[in-house]
Amino acid sequence: MNMSIGELAKKIKDGDRRALAHGITLVESSRADHRQQAVELIEILRHSEFNSIRIGLTGAPGVGKSTFIENFGMMLINCGLRVMVLAVDPSSTWSGGSILGDKTRMEQLSREENAFIRPSPNKTYLGGVARRTREAVLLGQAAGYDITIIETVGVGQSETVVSELSDLFVLLIPPSGGDDLQGVKRGIMELADLVLINKADGDLKSAATYTCAEYAAALRLMRIRVHDPDGFPKAIAISAIEKHGLTDVWLEIKKLCDWRKNNGYWNDRRSSQLRHWFEQEIQRAFMAKLEEHEVSLKFKKFSDEVALGHINPIKAAEQMMTFFE
Amino acid sequence: MNMSIGELAKKIKDGDRRALAHGITLVESSRADHRQQAVELIEILRHSEFNSIRIGLTGAPGVGKSTFIENFGMMLINCGLRVMVLAVDPSSTWSGGSILGDKTRMEQLSREENAFIRPSPNKTYLGGVARRTREAVLLGQAAGYDITIIETVGVGQSETVVSELSDLFVLLIPPSGGDDLQGVKRGIMELADLVLINKADGDLKSAATYTCAEYAAALRLMRIRVHDPDGFPKAIAISAIEKHGLTDVWLEIKKLCDWRKNNGYWNDRRSSQLRHWFEQEIQRAFMAKLEEHEVSLKFKKFSDEVALGHINPIKAAEQMMTFFE
Repeated sequence: MNMSIGELAKKIKDGDRRALAHGITLVESSRADHRQQAVELIEILRHSEFNSIRIGLTGAPGVGKSTFIENFGMMLINCGLRVMVLAVDPSSTWSGGSILGDKTRMEQLSREENAFIRPSPNKTYLGGVARRTREAVLLGQAAGYDITIIETVGVGQSETVVSELSDLFVLLIPPSGGDDLQGVKRGIMELADLVLINKADGDLKSAATYTCAEYAAALRLMRIRVHDPDGFPKAIAISAIEKHGLTDVWLEIKKLCDWRKNNGYWNDRRSSQLRHWFEQEIQRAFMAKLEEHEVSLKFKKFSDEVALGHINPIKAAEQMMTFFE
Repeated sequence: MNMSIGELAKKIKDGDRRALAHGITLVESSRADHRQQAVELIEILRHSEFNSIRIGLTGAPGVGKSTFIENFGMMLINCGLRVMVLAVDPSSTWSGGSILGDKTRMEQLSREENAFIRPSPNKTYLGGVARRTREAVLLGQAAGYDITIIETVGVGQSETVVSELSDLFVLLIPPSGGDDLQGVKRGIMELADLVLINKADGDLKSAATYTCAEYAAALRLMRIRVHDPDGFPKAIAISAIEKHGLTDVWLEIKKLCDWRKNNGYWNDRRSSQLRHWFEQEIQRAFMAKLEEHEVSLKFKKFSDEVALGHINPIKAAEQMMTFFE
């Protein structure tokens, strides 16, 4: 695209989809000149009003995330809302991104004028994902999307990243005997504001109801979180494919958002997320500094000696820091 | 314990278990004075000869990790080897560490004179886990443990941390239809040198054999890794509970280690891990610097303005860095 960043920013605010796509490509790029433009773009757009709700969504593969986003997204669009979907998948440097293209995963939604679906870029490392997604979310908000769904395939740490970029966090799980209640999900459970037990249909319906009750009980056991109204975090059994419970999910989300806005937790969370962003940028800037000529030579020298076992990494780090006294 | 760090170091090298436990407690502590002693201890002990093999082990809850470690560990001990087990579990700040105490998880092994089992400390964040585990591993090696098994419950990113601390990485999976082959495991598969399909016994035996074949095929599809001999990464069906295949696992591990040692990849990996450690320490030292008085005031001021949305976090980071010109 051959236009100034100012023009690009304006087009994005005007809801130009191609401009938004281009802007996201810009923030995804690691080229120095692109980076400079991206920062400029963000500086312009960050002053837009952000009324949108950022929903973090996670769940293991096969749990039905795509179907949920497809049908939940369509429901939102039928409510007159504009929906952005960002896929976050740092899991595989091997396959590089998701197995199915996100468009095929959400066929109906992807055809909607009021939906914008952005698959995760290939070969992104977790840090890169955080940065790129944070900035893509900001662009989408500036473009006036009311709802931003940030989806991760559920590979552990990425949930933490996503929750740092979201206003609320939704965990999608399959019906089960509840074994995994004790396991992998524990850390993630704490992040969840809503636990949706999907596939509450057909043969699995009763299992889903049972699992839902189990999770509800487990969630009650968690210490009450100050940023939650009564009854949250909440477990709900739904059927994404049969579109059962999707409206309830939306109503619960609304309820939670309104409560947090009325009680100050909404802005608190966004503020602390900005602080976190700042700290990450500082660390990045600092590591970039180590690449600068004079320092980099010293850094490389230390690194080599550490690699040879001549210096204790901790001591070497201390000495390296004297360059920044 | 009332002794000098020099004495503590000596006791650890002499194989005093209580001293080792105390040393690990020291590296786990966040108290400044403890930290200073820990660094001193590491500086002394890092000069020891490290012949031990560090095995990273991961797998979802319920896959049988405890049984595997118990029986695999006992087999190693019967081979006259000394075994250290470190549990890494950053997953839950809610329950704080693993559900079952590690001693109860590995009852027989924990009673062995030549085994040292250390559960993961409660409430550790991932970065803390990396640091603490890296240093605990070093202490265990200095104490002369031939094998260090670093176990993680498999919560995504923690595998990456563990693989950065290990010489080789073992993935334990259950028999399955192979759906998850496409999913969560993708990123982790790349880290794995051995994929063990556990529970190849009873009703699950044929499923395990099938799953093993699937993984073997998938591993063949992965681009050949320069640091691997022919046939690696490798999938093996085992039964931890019936102790089937455990010797094969050990022989394969030996084969891989010897090959890498003979081809220079062994030291390469340890060197790059030391470099990585160095970089992490630098980042930590830098963030600590931001806490120092004069700088910290500026840092807080920026952070507050960022939180209020007055400054772009990226710009703020750039300005903050001018303090280190």
